[in-house]
Amino acid sequence: MQPIVLTPLCDIPEIHPGDALAPLLEAAAQRAQKTLSDGILVVCQKIISKQEGRLRSLKTIAPSERAQILARETNKDPRLLEIILGETARIVRQAHNVLICETRHGFVCANAGVDCSNVPGDEMALLLPEDPDASARRLREALLALQHARRGVQSARLGILVSDTFGRPWREGLVDVAIGCAGFAPIDDARGHLDREGRELRVTQLAVADQLAAAAGLLMQKAAGIPAVWIEGVPIHGDGTAQALRRAKDLDLFR
Amino acid sequence: MQPIVLTPLCDIPEIHPGDALAPLLEAAAQRAQKTLSDGILVVCQKIISKQEGRLRSLKTIAPSERAQILARETNKDPRLLEIILGETARIVRQAHNVLICETRHGFVCANAGVDCSNVPGDEMALLLPEDPDASARRLREALLALQHARRGVQSARLGILVSDTFGRPWREGLVDVAIGCAGFAPIDDARGHLDREGRELRVTQLAVADQLAAAAGLLMQKAAGIPAVWIEGVPIHGDGTAQALRRAKDLDLFR
Repeated sequence: MQPIVLTPLCDIPEIHPGDALAPLLEAAAQRAQKTLSDGILVVCQKIISKQEGRLRSLKTIAPSERAQILARETNKDPRLLEIILGETARIVRQAHNVLICETRHGFVCANAGVDCSNVPGDEMALLLPEDPDASARRLREALLALQHARRGVQSARLGILVSDTFGRPWREGLVDVAIGCAGFAPIDDARGHLDREGRELRVTQLAVADQLAAAAGLLMQKAAGIPAVWIEGVPIHGDGTAQALRRAKDLDLFR
Repeated sequence: MQPIVLTPLCDIPEIHPGDALAPLLEAAAQRAQKTLSDGILVVCQKIISKQEGRLRSLKTIAPSERAQILARETNKDPRLLEIILGETARIVRQAHNVLICETRHGFVCANAGVDCSNVPGDEMALLLPEDPDASARRLREALLALQHARRGVQSARLGILVSDTFGRPWREGLVDVAIGCAGFAPIDDARGHLDREGRELRVTQLAVADQLAAAAGLLMQKAAGIPAVWIEGVPIHGDGTAQALRRAKDLDLFR
């Protein structure tokens, strides 16, 4: 069995709305002597959101009464709350300094993924991509088109993963998870396979996409300016979106 | 910034109670042309538990009334329930076919970590190690002693991580997490650091140990017989136990 190698893609410039990400990522891979083929490219949510112009200035926001009440209850900026509520399908928990939301996409995380760190400018908030699976698919298509134009080849074995850093219940510290996927199966479903003793495996649905995101997160230290990681050595098969990682409402014991 | 390399340690024989794990793991590393120095060794809980004799035969168990009632409610074997209850500090959620427990160690997972797959023999259950942090520390000391005896050297830069595969709320699929640690800091605390724009980072406690466990989990496919993974390229500093990953009761919004 081959090793897995995670290569940080460095020196990617600050991303602005409308920038073409694919050439920037391909150039960063070239600097690391890598070809983006036969592997998974993990890209942090921030550069996708910046490219998609998902920045909002707090200065232009007039908070609603609901945002103002929630701001007082959670000790947060009411203008930020207004933005967060626009991204929120459901508030899961709230407490002093804490607001756990289910986002429009169905992900459960703090502040519906709205963040103010590592965002250029004063009083700016960065929102999650509108549709991170679509972002992953577009980036994959752009990279495949680039490879086809440059070298006349096109590898189908290219997975794209958009990651974000989430907290979780019961455990301290944050981990990176997948919020957008394209070109690979996000869940490895081994139901029906046998264990070493020949019994059917019961624990069998592995969240491969989240394990990949967490692995890449080891290199994406927040302040280090590594917004993308190239992963080789992982079997790439199937397809699917990060929506497959959402637990269905009726199976969710922690609503 | 250097890449991270994950090497699977293969062909480790079935582990029996009392086996010396350190020489078996060192030999597996040698076969992979690796020296267990300057890196993190991730070992799956199962071989630790087997080595520590944490096997129970269901045939010898007389289930209590509480176990019988819970077995009916959750559609599980009452004898297995008896074992699970012995490992459980608190039942977090129960439903048909589902029992989420807080273990004696304070980890929240299905069935208090008691498992029947990949266990030799009929009707046998495998429990989590008594104290996975102590297991990690003992394995680290044994490996360091072995290195000292063989080569007269001893690397302080050796992290040991005991991993298990847990479900989580809201998201489908399982991921590997750390249940025991020794020789490295399980949480990377960057509070007080500045982001690229010079603002103080707010999201800053990264669960490095869980990211390492998840990365190793990519290679530890349940049926593939890879119970250990060697990780290089990760900065190894500090020390701590997996208990640092437990969220304190009063900060836990999901009890």
